[in-house]
Amino acid sequence: MTYCLGMHVKAGIVLIGDTRTNAGIDNISTFRKLHKLVDEADRVVFCASAGSLSTTQSMLALLEEGLESHDGEERRTVAHMPSMFRAVSLVCEALIQARINVARALAGTPINFDASLLVGGRIGNGPLALYLVYSEGNFIECLPDCPFAQIGELKYGKPILDRTLDWETPLYEAVKVGLLSFDSTMRSNLSVGMPLDLVVIPEDRQRPIVQRRLDENDPYYRKLSSDWGRLMQEARDKIDDPEFMGAS
Amino acid sequence: MTYCLGMHVKAGIVLIGDTRTNAGIDNISTFRKLHKLVDEADRVVFCASAGSLSTTQSMLALLEEGLESHDGEERRTVAHMPSMFRAVSLVCEALIQARINVARALAGTPINFDASLLVGGRIGNGPLALYLVYSEGNFIECLPDCPFAQIGELKYGKPILDRTLDWETPLYEAVKVGLLSFDSTMRSNLSVGMPLDLVVIPEDRQRPIVQRRLDENDPYYRKLSSDWGRLMQEARDKIDDPEFMGAS
Repeated sequence: MTYCLGMHVKAGIVLIGDTRTNAGIDNISTFRKLHKLVDEADRVVFCASAGSLSTTQSMLALLEEGLESHDGEERRTVAHMPSMFRAVSLVCEALIQARINVARALAGTPINFDASLLVGGRIGNGPLALYLVYSEGNFIECLPDCPFAQIGELKYGKPILDRTLDWETPLYEAVKVGLLSFDSTMRSNLSVGMPLDLVVIPEDRQRPIVQRRLDENDPYYRKLSSDWGRLMQEARDKIDDPEFMGAS
Repeated sequence: MTYCLGMHVKAGIVLIGDTRTNAGIDNISTFRKLHKLVDEADRVVFCASAGSLSTTQSMLALLEEGLESHDGEERRTVAHMPSMFRAVSLVCEALIQARINVARALAGTPINFDASLLVGGRIGNGPLALYLVYSEGNFIECLPDCPFAQIGELKYGKPILDRTLDWETPLYEAVKVGLLSFDSTMRSNLSVGMPLDLVVIPEDRQRPIVQRRLDENDPYYRKLSSDWGRLMQEARDKIDDPEFMGAS
C-alpha cells in the first residue's frame, strides 16, 4: 500500500509521498512515489502515485519519451503543454495507455493494476493547480472548500486534515499538518513507511521550491512525532471527565 | 457501514457503538448495534455488531430463544453458560447458524451477509473479558498489549487509540478516548453516525454498570467535540515550524 497527500492552500501546494511498496507482506521495498515531471524556468509539475508500481513506472516512462502526436508532429510531453489542465490530461492519457499495456500482460491473473495519482504544479503565468487522478484516468481539481486530496491508505490520516487544515492555513503549518497526517498513518499501518518525500511549491514565485526526503532519523520529524504524542496526551487530559461516570 | 469499539483496560470494559445503517447511500436508518445479551446478578454480557443487519438480528433472535441442545436438554442461552469463553463460543455458534440461514436466502445475489462482533462482560467469579468475533465465527480475546478491538469503519479512529490508550488508562479516560475516536470517525465518514450507545463495566464490582445513549445534542459530547477541535489546533501551533521551509 501507499499513502500520498496533496494540499493546495492559498499560500501554495504541498505534496508528500511515502516510499514503502510491498508485494505480499514478506516482500517489502523502498520506491520513490513522488516524481518530478518537469522543473524548468516556466513550469514545475510533480506527480505522486499510489497503486501498481508496474503501471506507474510504465506511465512515467511513456511521459518521459513523450506520447505520440496525432498530427505527426513532435512527441507530446509535459514540457510542451500550455496549461496545467493540458498537462494533467496528458498524464491521464499516459496512465490509460500504461494500464492497457499492463492489463495485457496480467490478463487472466487476479493481480490489480490500478494506479491513482496526484498531479500538482504551475505552467507559465497560470495559477497553481492540484489534481486527483482516478485509476480510470479521469480527474478532479482540488479546490478551496476541501484543500487536500489523498490517494492510497488515506483513512488514518484524514481526521487531522479535516480538523486543522483549511484554505487559509499558512504553508509551513500545512507542512506540519501533512507530516502529522503521515505520522498518524505510519503508527497505525505498516504498509506505509519512511522515508517520506516532500515538495513545497509556494504561491509566491519569489520563494524557492522546497524538495526534501525525511528518513526515520530526521531530527525535525522525530521531534514532531514525539511532541505530537505528548500533546495528544495533554489534550486528552484537558477534556472534561464524563460526569455520567460518577466521581473519577 | 458501522463503527464499534471495545476497550478492555485494567479498570474495566467500555463498549461503544454507533447507530447508522445504510442500504446504499440513499436509504439511511438508525438501528441499535450495542445489545445486552444478559444482565443478571451473576453475569453481564454485551455485544456490539457490524455488518449485515439481517445476519446480526437473526443471530440475536437465535440467542434469545436459545440454541438447540445436543443432548435433548434445555435450550442453550448465554444465561446458562459457565464462563465468558463458553458464552462467546455460543454467540459464535449462533452467528454461524444465522450466516447459513441468510446465505441460503441471498444465494445467487452479490449481497454481503458478513457480520463481525465485539462481545464483552463477566460471568460469575470469572474475570472481565472482551472478544473480537470475526465474520467467519472464530474469535480472539483482547489482551493488555493492545487493549482495544474495533469492528466496521475502524481506520479513522485508530490513531488516537494507538496514541493515547493503554492498559493503565483510567476508565473515565478510556471513555473520553473512545468518544474522541468516534468523533474523528464521524467527522470524516458519513456512514458512521449519532446517536452513540455506550456501556461501561467497571472491574470494581461495587461500582455500577453505566449504560447511556448520546445523541447529537448531548451537552457532554458537544463540548468534548468542540474542545478537541480547539485543542488539536493549539497542539498543531505548538509543534516547531519546519526549519527547512526557511523563515515563516
